[in-house]
Amino acid sequence: MLGLDPDPRELWPASDAGAGGGTPQQRAADAVLRHCQALIDATAEACVAVKLQLARFEALAAGGWSALEAVAAHARRQGLLVIADGKRGDIDVSARAYAGALIGGLQTPFGQLAGLGADLVTVNPLVGRDAIEPFVAAARAAGAGVLVLVRTSNPGAADIEELELRRGGAVWERVAELVEQLGAPGIGDSGLSDVGAVVGATAPGHLARARELMAAAPFLLPGVGAQGGRVEDLAPAFAPGRAGGLVSASRSIAGAHRLTGGEPAAAARAEAERMRESAWALSEDPGLVR
Amino acid sequence: MLGLDPDPRELWPASDAGAGGGTPQQRAADAVLRHCQALIDATAEACVAVKLQLARFEALAAGGWSALEAVAAHARRQGLLVIADGKRGDIDVSARAYAGALIGGLQTPFGQLAGLGADLVTVNPLVGRDAIEPFVAAARAAGAGVLVLVRTSNPGAADIEELELRRGGAVWERVAELVEQLGAPGIGDSGLSDVGAVVGATAPGHLARARELMAAAPFLLPGVGAQGGRVEDLAPAFAPGRAGGLVSASRSIAGAHRLTGGEPAAAARAEAERMRESAWALSEDPGLVR
Repeated sequence: MLGLDPDPRELWPASDAGAGGGTPQQRAADAVLRHCQALIDATAEACVAVKLQLARFEALAAGGWSALEAVAAHARRQGLLVIADGKRGDIDVSARAYAGALIGGLQTPFGQLAGLGADLVTVNPLVGRDAIEPFVAAARAAGAGVLVLVRTSNPGAADIEELELRRGGAVWERVAELVEQLGAPGIGDSGLSDVGAVVGATAPGHLARARELMAAAPFLLPGVGAQGGRVEDLAPAFAPGRAGGLVSASRSIAGAHRLTGGEPAAAARAEAERMRESAWALSEDPGLVR
Repeated sequence: MLGLDPDPRELWPASDAGAGGGTPQQRAADAVLRHCQALIDATAEACVAVKLQLARFEALAAGGWSALEAVAAHARRQGLLVIADGKRGDIDVSARAYAGALIGGLQTPFGQLAGLGADLVTVNPLVGRDAIEPFVAAARAAGAGVLVLVRTSNPGAADIEELELRRGGAVWERVAELVEQLGAPGIGDSGLSDVGAVVGATAPGHLARARELMAAAPFLLPGVGAQGGRVEDLAPAFAPGRAGGLVSASRSIAGAHRLTGGEPAAAARAEAERMRESAWALSEDPGLVR
């Protein structure tokens, strides 16, 4: 899966061609949009989804939100699922507003506000069950899904997520139980639930335990490539079939040409195909390919 | 302090006057802007800050971000601090992008991207220390501050934040230790640090312990009013002086006229003044008034 995490200081060379006037934000947003479109076009055949890192678009203000919508639309036209990676988490009324923004919109006296229409959204569970439920409700109504941060890919994941509980297990394992509970009513014909988990590819030792706690949850597996995770270590994620694991890489695809040389699009395509082959080699059940 | 949490279905009556054409998002964003400006104008004299709930603006897409910038500028013109309540939390590169978006911007080949210029931002600590540090660095460089979610105001706070640790204490107390550590280099002449804590006013039993763990942290105290918290219960927050506690109410100020009758602006002003008097009555040190 293609992670889109566009740093405006590291866009593909052609992205700022023809950049017109406007504010720095607007010019950067235009270039980010072209960069993301080119990356999608280069890698779509080897991917099932794009993951949009919302921080990069938020940094571009209003023009960034427009670019985000345009990138999501472009990915959809290429047949890709859209994952809005915002890691939002807030009390119930605010969670409903975020869910409306990223999934299905909101009915108001001003008319129906369109949402981003994401197929999956990442959610931060710290604030508790009532911060997750509005996302689950909105996703379920829209045929979308939720990916809850369970064990993230960064070094700091040890600070809170790994704390050992008096009742046994770690904080992240308690979050995993919540994911399993919230997802139970949303298990579809595929055997997968509409509530999944973010489990970093950088700590593969946790994957078997995570799969034990969340049998039906799709796993989003970030951290492959630039953060040090390796696809080959992720087998437990694919226990329910190929669709059980969504392997995400951002910088290692967008920046593949820096390692391999050559044209950025060709290098990105080759890296995305290499990742897909590695992931599929781990999976046994071709019936679940998406 | 005035919480701005504008539900487009519950704006003050005059807010949609003169709403022109455009998309539903744009009309809603225009009305939200007018509503927030009117609320600020009505209550500015009784407040030190506005807290902007980013979810409400995100739900209005690109027009919502423009409205957010305009509301922040209006609050600043009225002499108020601006708190960007986005509860962002992500790995280091993404946290830097969010910090740029909400605080000091980012230098790019397209020119300097302006940030929102918030004086304080709320941050979610689940992902760990490396999700907080980029916000602290950006805030410290800009003379701003960070408010880390320590113990939130919602019922679900018990699900994760209250879990008891094997080493003793609860998850939220470990987060409080992190806040104290990150804030130690940022204690100013006032005795307050530039790293503070969100501690819900709905669980006042935690406040004395929170103050014990975070002696120098400013506390943002949401949950007064609609969520059931009472200013009178918040005394420990003000131990370092009046500026030690920022009491936040959103719906109880914006919707005061529904309880008291009369004109919305007058009712909001009266409620904001009542809250200020209650908070100041708890504090002993007039030297720290902001």
